[in-house]
Amino acid sequence: MKITMAHGSGGWETSQLIENLFARYFSNPILDRMEDSAVVEGGARIAFTTDSFVVHPLFFPGGDIGRLAVCGTVNDLLMSGSRPAYLSCAMILQEGLKIETLENIVRSMAETAREAGVLIAAGDTKVVEGPGELYINTSGIGYMPEGRNIGASLCRPGDRILVSGCLGDHHAAIMSARMGIENEIRSDAAPLNRMVNGLFEAGVGVRAMRDITRGGLATILEEYAHACRYGMEIRQKDIPVSVQTRGFCEILGLDPLYMGNEGKMLLVVKEEDASQALEILRGSPYGEGAAMIGEVTTRHQGRAYVKTDIGGERLLSPLYGEGLPRIC
Amino acid sequence: MKITMAHGSGGWETSQLIENLFARYFSNPILDRMEDSAVVEGGARIAFTTDSFVVHPLFFPGGDIGRLAVCGTVNDLLMSGSRPAYLSCAMILQEGLKIETLENIVRSMAETAREAGVLIAAGDTKVVEGPGELYINTSGIGYMPEGRNIGASLCRPGDRILVSGCLGDHHAAIMSARMGIENEIRSDAAPLNRMVNGLFEAGVGVRAMRDITRGGLATILEEYAHACRYGMEIRQKDIPVSVQTRGFCEILGLDPLYMGNEGKMLLVVKEEDASQALEILRGSPYGEGAAMIGEVTTRHQGRAYVKTDIGGERLLSPLYGEGLPRIC
Repeated sequence: MKITMAHGSGGWETSQLIENLFARYFSNPILDRMEDSAVVEGGARIAFTTDSFVVHPLFFPGGDIGRLAVCGTVNDLLMSGSRPAYLSCAMILQEGLKIETLENIVRSMAETAREAGVLIAAGDTKVVEGPGELYINTSGIGYMPEGRNIGASLCRPGDRILVSGCLGDHHAAIMSARMGIENEIRSDAAPLNRMVNGLFEAGVGVRAMRDITRGGLATILEEYAHACRYGMEIRQKDIPVSVQTRGFCEILGLDPLYMGNEGKMLLVVKEEDASQALEILRGSPYGEGAAMIGEVTTRHQGRAYVKTDIGGERLLSPLYGEGLPRIC
Repeated sequence: MKITMAHGSGGWETSQLIENLFARYFSNPILDRMEDSAVVEGGARIAFTTDSFVVHPLFFPGGDIGRLAVCGTVNDLLMSGSRPAYLSCAMILQEGLKIETLENIVRSMAETAREAGVLIAAGDTKVVEGPGELYINTSGIGYMPEGRNIGASLCRPGDRILVSGCLGDHHAAIMSARMGIENEIRSDAAPLNRMVNGLFEAGVGVRAMRDITRGGLATILEEYAHACRYGMEIRQKDIPVSVQTRGFCEILGLDPLYMGNEGKMLLVVKEEDASQALEILRGSPYGEGAAMIGEVTTRHQGRAYVKTDIGGERLLSPLYGEGLPRIC
């Protein structure tokens, strides 16, 4: 069975698709009310974010577009310091998409939402012409704990810069899948709840954090340097990259600093909390490869730079050009 | 200048597009923080909704995809009884889209958001292959006033059924534009804030309301009948349809009861408040064509039906088949 234009009509076929597929996997007391807006518990301050996912191919080693769509928005909410609570799921389906394919993606979203502790509270379905793929938008709501205040502008000289694991795996996995290269590289797509909760529960002095997606670590560090007006220094030798991904990058001339990830975060913490933070990251799911890679300095103010292995310094730029399109 | 894959990279070109276009029109203190999640004021209960817009063509008499994307989500929030407050705006751009076209759409969104009194608080941009069009997802958050409780299941026999104006104009305008037919029909795309606020401020006993989009009035009435387990009776002769749209429908064999609208609502109110409600609708912007069209009955329980002009009765079904694809 395949998706037809009728599934986007808003009539009988749409309601059948919702009942027989979406509701079956996403069922929860809020979504099951089936109103045009979900009514959910609020809070004094809430975080609100949106992200569309257009990755190609839809399935790849380590994940699929559904897992990405949940992880991406959950991680964006987490990075604001909020506790992710509700997601919406809006599907733009291309005519001809196999229902079986859609079901595999929906199941993956439901499983990932369960892992991340969020409810899918609202949804929408449209059908367009195309080669039988789909796009997913997830928007999300999180609760902001009272008094929590983090952001790039709060970084101060001496603060330590950490990453939660090896860089470039998602990017390399998508590229390998597209080029038909068989290797051991798997996407890192993962929700980072437990890692982030661990940091806050332990009282780590978190200045800023950001999930390292499109644009890569370099682009974020440049934005951070710009926001806090200090230098962001990282050491080449400490940047964690897996053996397989490093090999892949060398062959293709790619720089892991500019590659996209879907389950990795950049963390800036107070100097005195840095080793505790590293321990928490390493002890969390998806954090085994965490590393301390640099610090905030008073040199090259407003810029990010790398100390190279041979003792030189290289200023970083944000990503120019297209990188890899449709990576997430 | 045209959209290229680089505009979706998450790097320099993406940030230029955001700064030079999106931020210029959508600028507000929340969006300007440029974090991955917006942090906004919460409330005890909040409404949360999502909708993607894939309408073709992008511009049509009476509106464009940008105006639709704001109205659609604002109206969904309103229909839950909430006060719309924040929208997200996620764009999926096709390579080759003219920047000028995008700017016209963004400007239209900004103007409509201002009219509707909502802030655009979060955004995302992706670029995909395609013939140079775009899709827009808007998700929205609204505040639920305390004690407000409306829903289809609350309808009772004797309640009156109203619509806020002529049916079918959006559908007929889109169809005319696609078929290259020149006529006077314009889309009704409009935010219904003032109309809905008027009803609640006057203390009208609103049982349920729904904006009449894809699937048309018939599909909603069927859902309402199913939800409240009473009959939903409407009178053929009282259903408002403009002369132009009626003519268009007769030529093409279309039924306005199944046609999509983008600025019309169905309203079920207590019998004693019906004439006051009608007056408020008619006195509101976009409500001049409002009409009382029927009532909730104990006949044909669980079904919606039409009293025809010659005294017969016809049971309604939800829309089957595709209707008009990519109508919103």
